Amino acid sequence: MIVTIVGVGLIGGSLALSLKEKGIADRIIGADNHNENLQKALSLNIIDEAAALEDAFDRSDLVVLAIPVDALLKVMPGLMDRAGKQVIMDVGSTKEKILELVAGHPNRGRFVAAHPMAGTEYSGPEAAVQHLFKGKTMVLCDVKHSDDDALEMIEEMVDKLHMRLVYMNAEEHDLHTAYVSHISHITSFALALTVLEKEKEKGRIFELASGGFESTVRLAKSSPDMWVPIFKHNRNNVLDVLDEHIHQLEQMRDLLKSEDYDTFYKLIQKSNKIKRILK
Amino acid sequence: MIVTIVGVGLIGGSLALSLKEKGIADRIIGADNHNENLQKALSLNIIDEAAALEDAFDRSDLVVLAIPVDALLKVMPGLMDRAGKQVIMDVGSTKEKILELVAGHPNRGRFVAAHPMAGTEYSGPEAAVQHLFKGKTMVLCDVKHSDDDALEMIEEMVDKLHMRLVYMNAEEHDLHTAYVSHISHITSFALALTVLEKEKEKGRIFELASGGFESTVRLAKSSPDMWVPIFKHNRNNVLDVLDEHIHQLEQMRDLLKSEDYDTFYKLIQKSNKIKRILK
Repeated sequence: MIVTIVGVGLIGGSLALSLKEKGIADRIIGADNHNENLQKALSLNIIDEAAALEDAFDRSDLVVLAIPVDALLKVMPGLMDRAGKQVIMDVGSTKEKILELVAGHPNRGRFVAAHPMAGTEYSGPEAAVQHLFKGKTMVLCDVKHSDDDALEMIEEMVDKLHMRLVYMNAEEHDLHTAYVSHISHITSFALALTVLEKEKEKGRIFELASGGFESTVRLAKSSPDMWVPIFKHNRNNVLDVLDEHIHQLEQMRDLLKSEDYDTFYKLIQKSNKIKRILK
Repeated sequence: MIVTIVGVGLIGGSLALSLKEKGIADRIIGADNHNENLQKALSLNIIDEAAALEDAFDRSDLVVLAIPVDALLKVMPGLMDRAGKQVIMDVGSTKEKILELVAGHPNRGRFVAAHPMAGTEYSGPEAAVQHLFKGKTMVLCDVKHSDDDALEMIEEMVDKLHMRLVYMNAEEHDLHTAYVSHISHITSFALALTVLEKEKEKGRIFELASGGFESTVRLAKSSPDMWVPIFKHNRNNVLDVLDEHIHQLEQMRDLLKSEDYDTFYKLIQKSNKIKRILK
């Protein structure tokens, strides 16, 4: 089939590579507002052809929208109006706003709302890697409003990509991703700012930073173009979990201030329970 | 030479493996308050022999103390009194308290204060890995108070382990490690507590947690036996950087509350500067 990837960055580009490698797509058309991304994607053999979305849309069996969630809201209405046989899938990190936007549209069934739980802190076509999705989870949201053939196409793709399928409604999705993804990014951004603020002798960071620091702070390399819209869309959930996180840090600070090391010890022991959940 | 490793856990065990592999140690004696650790270390061929520290001390050319920093303070005075030809090295994560303790001791010169900037979130002899130190930084503190032969022995070892040497005074060390190591652990512990608190449907964490979450939270698997004494010893620096971190998070929360996404964007851009420092 012919697949158009809108936004040939980390996620769109990696998906293009995987769809080609697995023989799911016969031809990949790339569309992107940034012409240099298209040129890079062509030279890296991520896409077969660069085209304007308007030109590519009618020829496509599947159109994947891999753009920041604010841009998604802008481009979606026009595409929904135009949808015929095509399946439209997004890969955005928030789901409530987009699903509100398309609710009740006559072509609603052509849309499948998806979120692959995979990524790195890098962006752009150079960041695309072939096996980004293998073994990862693909969340599909509110699938009861998608047409059977559209859903089947995406489910089959997910299967061929060796991803695990999870179904959720949009509300659940946005709540859980606030907990396990969005707050991690907030923490990392804040940690980077903290260290940049406190550490004036920059060389010392480089010299001393070990694996622990690097892994905690690596998400702070993530692009604001992608993340500010996510925080905006998922503001209430993010605020809720951020309040809790600040509360936990304040609790640790208070225990350290009052030198109550026994309670501090118990708190760390409690946090160790994350082991059981992650492993 | 004969090396006694006191505390055959992640760091002590990994060092034992490396010293053996590089031909630096002819014989490794393990000493540990936990007999099961010694048994495991023997069965994993991490040590050649298990012994009580009192028995091993006089036979050793080098005694490495790889125990939590509070235990270090307890065992150190007796060893300093007894030190003859032996070199005593610690690998603790804080340095001011231990160096205060040994200051002015007649045998002070036999001690070299070291901190390898390497580790994982796991502990115990099973966590020991051979190449933990390769390419990592070894900080040596206040070396002017160490005897020449003692310092040379350790510098040569560091060189053979393919580590990078950095010299600092204890005050500098404790300040910088608060920024690049200790705060990362606080953040991770707090993040784990946050998510455990907010996320009641535990299965959802497992399903949705992607690489980003895992890397931010992995340090929360770290042992309180090791970390509470570190926070205790480095309390003032950790409190200082923790206050700054809470301040940064509050700033982000306030911007999100007031929906000032432009300033939020600039803040993330600023945090992205960590790229230049880490890479």
